[in-house]
Amino acid sequence: MSEIKPRLFKGTRDFLPEMMIRKQYMIDRLRVIFERYGFEPVETPAMEFYEILVGKYGGESEKLIYPLAYKGGKTLALRYDLTVPLARLVAMHPELPMPFKRYQIQPVWRADSPQLRQGRFREFVQCDVDTVGTASVLADAEIIGMIDTCLVELGVERFVNRINNRKILYAIASHLSLGEEEGTAIIRAMDKRDKVGVEGVQKELGESGFDDRVTDVVTGIMEIDGSDSERIGRLLDILEGDEAAREGAKEVETILGALADQGVDEARYEFDPALARGLDYYTGPIFEAALPGQPHIGSLCGGGRYDGLIGRYAKRDIPATGTTIGLDRILAAMEQLNLLPGGRTKVDALVCLFDEASADVTQGTAALLRKAGLNVDTYFEPAKLKKQFSYADKRGIPVVIVVGPDETSEGKATVKEMKTGEQQTVPRESLAETVRKLTTRGE
Amino acid sequence: MSEIKPRLFKGTRDFLPEMMIRKQYMIDRLRVIFERYGFEPVETPAMEFYEILVGKYGGESEKLIYPLAYKGGKTLALRYDLTVPLARLVAMHPELPMPFKRYQIQPVWRADSPQLRQGRFREFVQCDVDTVGTASVLADAEIIGMIDTCLVELGVERFVNRINNRKILYAIASHLSLGEEEGTAIIRAMDKRDKVGVEGVQKELGESGFDDRVTDVVTGIMEIDGSDSERIGRLLDILEGDEAAREGAKEVETILGALADQGVDEARYEFDPALARGLDYYTGPIFEAALPGQPHIGSLCGGGRYDGLIGRYAKRDIPATGTTIGLDRILAAMEQLNLLPGGRTKVDALVCLFDEASADVTQGTAALLRKAGLNVDTYFEPAKLKKQFSYADKRGIPVVIVVGPDETSEGKATVKEMKTGEQQTVPRESLAETVRKLTTRGE
Repeated sequence: MSEIKPRLFKGTRDFLPEMMIRKQYMIDRLRVIFERYGFEPVETPAMEFYEILVGKYGGESEKLIYPLAYKGGKTLALRYDLTVPLARLVAMHPELPMPFKRYQIQPVWRADSPQLRQGRFREFVQCDVDTVGTASVLADAEIIGMIDTCLVELGVERFVNRINNRKILYAIASHLSLGEEEGTAIIRAMDKRDKVGVEGVQKELGESGFDDRVTDVVTGIMEIDGSDSERIGRLLDILEGDEAAREGAKEVETILGALADQGVDEARYEFDPALARGLDYYTGPIFEAALPGQPHIGSLCGGGRYDGLIGRYAKRDIPATGTTIGLDRILAAMEQLNLLPGGRTKVDALVCLFDEASADVTQGTAALLRKAGLNVDTYFEPAKLKKQFSYADKRGIPVVIVVGPDETSEGKATVKEMKTGEQQTVPRESLAETVRKLTTRGE
Repeated sequence: MSEIKPRLFKGTRDFLPEMMIRKQYMIDRLRVIFERYGFEPVETPAMEFYEILVGKYGGESEKLIYPLAYKGGKTLALRYDLTVPLARLVAMHPELPMPFKRYQIQPVWRADSPQLRQGRFREFVQCDVDTVGTASVLADAEIIGMIDTCLVELGVERFVNRINNRKILYAIASHLSLGEEEGTAIIRAMDKRDKVGVEGVQKELGESGFDDRVTDVVTGIMEIDGSDSERIGRLLDILEGDEAAREGAKEVETILGALADQGVDEARYEFDPALARGLDYYTGPIFEAALPGQPHIGSLCGGGRYDGLIGRYAKRDIPATGTTIGLDRILAAMEQLNLLPGGRTKVDALVCLFDEASADVTQGTAALLRKAGLNVDTYFEPAKLKKQFSYADKRGIPVVIVVGPDETSEGKATVKEMKTGEQQTVPRESLAETVRKLTTRGE
């Protein structure tokens, strides 16, 4: 026992109260909004059967998985996302009314090398919101509108939600009479635009052996600007009315229209025909919200339609669309924009223990304030008041209360505001009100 | 892929919306109370180093642990409780102000045979509240008082919180001049009293080879009744003023006094000198809340002081006391007492899609109601209203809203209450208010 060093596995974290209060604040606000949009909470177990987890991407996902040392190691593993568990749950519950709208906020585990990828952890909380069982892109528009409400209500207002459609991206290859593999290579190159710029994408296309005809089309798409409707027009010009592109553009128009109908500020969303969203399993509309000019924070949320995936587990056709909200990144953005509630504690006041004999007064005073809905701590051991004040200070508790023999006999209490050092002695009856006025939380 | 059967590992569960809404309701209410008592949230990673997890009880705990298939299997494992992670966290953070008061609500994993122990799962959420760093039993009294508030505020009022002290139990053996091993055997036998009765305990003591002198003392303690102060008097009579028993009884008196000072109803707590709380690591006051006459539900919460454990990880003396709240059992008790919020959904209303051309009206109406704070769902695909109403019915949504061309031209909406089938057409301006009146949540 004596040789065991207390330590954490690299890539995992403790959340101490100060961080946890902030994280919980954000999650509580988000939950209210998800529910306002008709999404309902779901939770699934941490451990799933290995074959189910690996089913989605096959070999690709094996590298990401933490298997349990159970029956040879390829029987059970920790989930690495919330999409496979959703697909498994939907397949097991054919009685669920469709569309099934769920949100899920739970940790996932990735067998990554955390030091290699800055800001990536081996355990992190994922927050997914999905609508399963409808092909209507109004469901996509609802999720994009909900993301807008989430970010605005958290105070992150200077973001832009870029919207595109995989059908448009796939149309580039088919328009150029190229195959699927080349189409993927083009999307992979375009996906790097935010990091390497238009020239970087052109360079990668050249290095991949594409000719000028390809580079010209891709460059044209990346450089499209103007209003959303102008962009759509120019895109269709470039792709010369390709049928898939036309269908993708029409879906984008429906989404843009629905966002306007919802009253979303048009400064916060735009059609970006070059948005690619990595090499994920998307099949239709895709979107990504980020802070312009803050590439180090990365995207705050992203998502899109993935009609092929859920149905594979249920062996029937189940279209789906959804988003993953990057809690760690939103927290970082909120921290940077100074949007998180101040204070290291949620405790409003510490009731001091005047002396060993006055424990009854301390207990009674704390009970009175707690019944009034205040968050109250008591000191347990007889100690100099200075020591008790210092404890309040270390914890960031804004108010301390002392009820000595004089106060007790007069039915009063002395209240000290830690920030200013100001003291006042008030009747017991108005103690709760006095504390409430001195604490931010009570406002 | 096609051969993979969607299924869950036995002993793990999905929480579908209906159950999840209830669980979340309970957790949200508890969190508010924990914070009112000055406890602050903490979270720790699911995976800890194997040697740290096994450190506490040694070999005993190995059977409970799920190791990861990582570097041979004895490197990392899933936590099986929240106490070892607390001890590890405190050891790693000597800067934390003491006492450190934390609550933690996270899943734990037990490599049990779930079918062997009714109602036990391999993954379940544990809810721990602990005060670390004070030897004062006022901290124990605070936790017992908090448990009382939790259960009362959740509506579970007919429980009794039994209180004892391990010092009293250990005094039985020392009073009878028996060794530690025999003391443990006596506690083990007494622990079964609720299941096998006084006679069952006597039988076990006889079978373990104890003589009548032991059985008489133990029986005397188990049969003590009267008021709490009478019980304490009789206990000290039986143990003939044993010093450890006297100390334990004095601590119990302090706790009972503090509970009275806090205003806790004395019908809901009592001193029970035979309460044993298993063979856990307790060193001082122990307590356990249960519904009298409902042994099938088991104890709702239990806990006590464990001064030896936390310090072992930090290599310094760190007294601690705390409780584990049985969320599954409280949920079962609330279900049985009909205390859980009704309804399968938190959605207040479904805005129907009158026809394909009226998506703009649906989107706008939903946005209006959501801005008013209502939880609103929209229908995405053009379908007969009957089908849309049936969807609302299946999800348990209490209100449906239809805005057809007539309503649109008049600036109105038709509202139908699903339960009664009653319909009314109201101006757009009073739509939110009408829906709010028809839904329980809006009250």
